Amino acid sequence: MTKPRYDVIAIGNAIVDVVAPCSDELIVELNMAKGGMTLIDAAQARDLYDAMGPAREISGGSAANTLAGLSALGAQCAFIGQVADDQLGQVFAHDIRAVGVDFDIAPRRTSQAEAEPPTARCLIFVTPDGQRTMNTFLGASQFLPAAAVDAESVASGGVLYLEGYLWDPAEPRAAMRVAIDAARQAGRKVALTLSDTFVIERHGDDFCKLIEAGQIDILFSNEAELAAITGEPDFETALGMVAPRVPLLVVTRSEKGAVALRGDERAEVAAEPVSEVVDTTGAGDLFAAGFLFGVVRGEALEACLRRGAIAAAEIISHYGARPEEDLQMLMEAKIG
Amino acid sequence: MTKPRYDVIAIGNAIVDVVAPCSDELIVELNMAKGGMTLIDAAQARDLYDAMGPAREISGGSAANTLAGLSALGAQCAFIGQVADDQLGQVFAHDIRAVGVDFDIAPRRTSQAEAEPPTARCLIFVTPDGQRTMNTFLGASQFLPAAAVDAESVASGGVLYLEGYLWDPAEPRAAMRVAIDAARQAGRKVALTLSDTFVIERHGDDFCKLIEAGQIDILFSNEAELAAITGEPDFETALGMVAPRVPLLVVTRSEKGAVALRGDERAEVAAEPVSEVVDTTGAGDLFAAGFLFGVVRGEALEACLRRGAIAAAEIISHYGARPEEDLQMLMEAKIG
Repeated sequence: MTKPRYDVIAIGNAIVDVVAPCSDELIVELNMAKGGMTLIDAAQARDLYDAMGPAREISGGSAANTLAGLSALGAQCAFIGQVADDQLGQVFAHDIRAVGVDFDIAPRRTSQAEAEPPTARCLIFVTPDGQRTMNTFLGASQFLPAAAVDAESVASGGVLYLEGYLWDPAEPRAAMRVAIDAARQAGRKVALTLSDTFVIERHGDDFCKLIEAGQIDILFSNEAELAAITGEPDFETALGMVAPRVPLLVVTRSEKGAVALRGDERAEVAAEPVSEVVDTTGAGDLFAAGFLFGVVRGEALEACLRRGAIAAAEIISHYGARPEEDLQMLMEAKIG
Repeated sequence: MTKPRYDVIAIGNAIVDVVAPCSDELIVELNMAKGGMTLIDAAQARDLYDAMGPAREISGGSAANTLAGLSALGAQCAFIGQVADDQLGQVFAHDIRAVGVDFDIAPRRTSQAEAEPPTARCLIFVTPDGQRTMNTFLGASQFLPAAAVDAESVASGGVLYLEGYLWDPAEPRAAMRVAIDAARQAGRKVALTLSDTFVIERHGDDFCKLIEAGQIDILFSNEAELAAITGEPDFETALGMVAPRVPLLVVTRSEKGAVALRGDERAEVAAEPVSEVVDTTGAGDLFAAGFLFGVVRGEALEACLRRGAIAAAEIISHYGARPEEDLQMLMEAKIG
């Protein structure tokens, strides 16, 4: 087995976040589920944008955020996702390349026919408590074709990281199935993040089958997703149901920290203190970045968790889900 | 004379800022004049964007920023500027309307012919000292037609605020001349900000003629611009040259505060303390917002200056040139 060219290759949504602070009253008024993620169509996106305050645009996308964190830490990464050939697509491509991630999926044409979907955007309403409520218009992102994934490029990554959100639309789901097979044939590791409970409601059976078939080496979940996929509200019981079925299970628990289980080994970490929680968008994504960086370097579970907690703390201390501080220096200062 | 519908109507560039932190070394490497503003063409914009780190997009434009501040303070405002019918144009229009500013100039068509210029953007490199170095691709903004300005709408504003930057391109310059005449005929006040020394190098004679002809009621300048337009390096001497020629002169001096002169009256204010200067973009724009808000309310010069200093301090404490904190509450807390 040759040494892979990339530490991590990820398949995920190519999204630009549109981030605006808002009041709790507006969340109620707009009938949004606070803290959740809702898929919206173009008309809903227009209406919600009209109701939104002044915003800033910052590249996002769950797996893309994770790669941005990994790359900032020094890992070699490549991203597979679909933008359109519009200005937001240029923004997404610029930002992910600027942080050192390879991204060479051709943008989808939009200029010829106006009906072609634009680059995905996520309208993120951030309440004063830092909680984010997300409304995602997937646009071009859901049309990532299976042809964008070839066995050779998947084999060039030591870890294939899959964004659960992208399991929902049919085309990228097919692309991810191709990628999983290619990764396993090449002897690479497959990591999956469950992303959101709505994905589990729709595709939990698929995920369980993948896990049972031994196709997932590293599973990232949060507490709510773990409860959703097991149907078991008790945390320890749910952990005990999933842990024996995946080589490495990582569960994040917001302010309660995180836990990782690998065979008989179990490690936990407390949440990293944050002076002010500004915007929780990307907390899970950056936790995964820090954790995977430790995995790539062959570190002990506890060190991996600690890296995850530090990266997550950085991201929630400002607006946007891409790191602003120098993560390498931050980790050196905190871990050495 | 009827009471105007708007407190302030501004004509300015309709720009989306693309803001990224950068090192001092990159400023040198890219051969940029640190702290300055340079006009760039589409090819230069592409090259510089390629050299830029991960960025965030935040609506900008000097006079538009001033209106955003005024509107946040509770003033009624309308903006006249030109975007294209592209995604950045939608972002600009959304953000200025979301803060309560009326903006109804139709976007310029781009979809039919690819050669049509897109919405303006300003690539802003922010060094660790908070200094911003701006590179502006004017795109559609420089094609604001004189037809976009009608006498009736200009007469509906108590103050007409003109962005000096926009004096450079021919079409908006013609639009602003139309607007000045319309404002004077309606008995409204005309305010001009000199914007940058490069504008004075090219159009200082125009500005001097406007001032000599008594067409400018309120002149905003910074120290460097005052020296440029007078050719006089000594600050007090330069002040004495300009002050007798405009009813109200306001000069900002960065960390040295600001001074305002109206007839025999002179007031000064110290700079408002800031815990960390993150990004100086928009400091002058928001100073003008605070100051003009005081003017609109008929406050004393010193109170106007203090409002300017408080608004400027807010804007330099974060990335982007649009207010993030509640300016009204901020002023109430500091001024009462």
